Amino acid sequence: MNDFVLAGDLGGTNLRVAAIDDEGRMLARLEDETPRHTDDTRIVAAALRLAKECGDRIGRKPLGLGFALPAIMSGPEGRVFSSPNLPELNGSLIGPNLREGLSMDVVLENDANAAAIGENWLGASQGSGDSICLTLGTGVGGGIILDGRPHRGPDGTAGEIGHVCVEPLGPPCGCGSYGCLEQFASATAVVRIAREMASDFSDTKVPLDSEFTALDLYNAGTSGDRLAVEVFRRVGYYLGIAIGGIVNVLNPEVVVLGGGMSGAWDLFIGELKEEIRKRAFHEPAERARIVRAKLGSDAGLFGAAWLAFAQGTRSIDQSH
Amino acid sequence: MNDFVLAGDLGGTNLRVAAIDDEGRMLARLEDETPRHTDDTRIVAAALRLAKECGDRIGRKPLGLGFALPAIMSGPEGRVFSSPNLPELNGSLIGPNLREGLSMDVVLENDANAAAIGENWLGASQGSGDSICLTLGTGVGGGIILDGRPHRGPDGTAGEIGHVCVEPLGPPCGCGSYGCLEQFASATAVVRIAREMASDFSDTKVPLDSEFTALDLYNAGTSGDRLAVEVFRRVGYYLGIAIGGIVNVLNPEVVVLGGGMSGAWDLFIGELKEEIRKRAFHEPAERARIVRAKLGSDAGLFGAAWLAFAQGTRSIDQSH
Repeated sequence: MNDFVLAGDLGGTNLRVAAIDDEGRMLARLEDETPRHTDDTRIVAAALRLAKECGDRIGRKPLGLGFALPAIMSGPEGRVFSSPNLPELNGSLIGPNLREGLSMDVVLENDANAAAIGENWLGASQGSGDSICLTLGTGVGGGIILDGRPHRGPDGTAGEIGHVCVEPLGPPCGCGSYGCLEQFASATAVVRIAREMASDFSDTKVPLDSEFTALDLYNAGTSGDRLAVEVFRRVGYYLGIAIGGIVNVLNPEVVVLGGGMSGAWDLFIGELKEEIRKRAFHEPAERARIVRAKLGSDAGLFGAAWLAFAQGTRSIDQSH
Repeated sequence: MNDFVLAGDLGGTNLRVAAIDDEGRMLARLEDETPRHTDDTRIVAAALRLAKECGDRIGRKPLGLGFALPAIMSGPEGRVFSSPNLPELNGSLIGPNLREGLSMDVVLENDANAAAIGENWLGASQGSGDSICLTLGTGVGGGIILDGRPHRGPDGTAGEIGHVCVEPLGPPCGCGSYGCLEQFASATAVVRIAREMASDFSDTKVPLDSEFTALDLYNAGTSGDRLAVEVFRRVGYYLGIAIGGIVNVLNPEVVVLGGGMSGAWDLFIGELKEEIRKRAFHEPAERARIVRAKLGSDAGLFGAAWLAFAQGTRSIDQSH
């Protein structure tokens, strides 16, 4: 029987825990709403409950727990520095709490890094040594894989490609800066950009008077709506600027784009590739394959599982 | 007696070769003008001559040759892709030619990467695992050290931080893109920027009618000339944007600034640090020490020497 680990992925809406074996098979999977509170006690309690139940279903002892969360942390086992979407985690010691409650090794990881690791283990960048992964959702998360391993840096904060500046005087960003990639390539951003540009496109069918979403914009774009087409062209333009810079700086083999906004692929990929071709050096631009994520919303769980295996004594076979 | 290697550093003006031992002592050093020609034969011949003479002076056999050059190459031993400042090297097989001519192992490296390695071995980033080094000269070169070793990427082209876009609609760059950091932070750039802004500063003492240099501008700035002060403030602003992005993406411990333009440190460092503080996440921004290079124009020679040792069987002690 194969060894297995527990893997958790905490989001603003849902908390998921799975049992995953060393060949990447998902043996069990539980999901619950993320319990919001003024502090982290309910989240820790819910994570412990799901993890124990998941372990019980397999009936054997897991090697450890990998846990992905939407936060910047002080290294894999440390304190949460900041978690803009779940502020009750600011300063949280969720790692040590889970370790104590489960009596097993626990490794924490930023959710975007975990997704990058998951895609590298089992998904779109499988088999490549150097890759980056951008998660285009409500925000823009990023993760970097170098030599087959996540690059975290001394504070565990590396990979924040969503907070590279692409427009020095651009709109303010939740991170405190302005003109970050996140302000041009997230689901939130495209709605703002559409409103900003609407006056130039009086023929648009986008329901500007209501609470339209990035999906509404995408649907309009696929029907040829000129406003929506232009909004996603700009998404591609700014993604191309940021990724072109990363291509020059890191020379990755693969660039994985995931998250809800990657569903608008056909509306932005042309401009994105054109901008990389214009801006990056020839050889690394030719090298970098731009691909869609394969693991969907499970990428973070698989990445968390990989980390739980990796921190144990046995290595996992990356070719699976 | 300590082992030693030969190290070469080829620039647009000079070619230097040194004998360096495994504790970083320079045992011999020769310099000549870079012989320009329509192909690379004269450069190869000059490098062979200096290398042989340097080896003869020591009277023992070197372990190998490390050679830094202003080019993008296909990995440490391969073909030169492109060398904008020495176009006769485009497509050159200078690595194999030197190897054959000297009957020893040869490792090639981009000059900015070599400077980063040199500073990490013996200079400003000594003792740090993750650092970047920017060489602010006629252009802006960059090198990345991760885990104490150069990060090259699969094509050997990584580290081109000078060609990150900091102004999407900025001036055209020699690399084919536009708005690259190099267009705002090189010695060439400050002269252009000063001319662009001159009409707003009628009180300037900068000799705008003549062929003034970055040094003239710096001297004017230290005397309080408002145009010159504003030009270097903008250098700091754009360096801060680019380095702030790198801080978010790589979380380096040290950022080394070298090259002639780093001499204008006191005129740009305030704005540079302010921009990083505004734009990067708190913890990695606090972490990253911004420091001046220590090895001057010898950084590339020392980096080339480190590489020659590193490709041999014995490792060198990084603490020296």
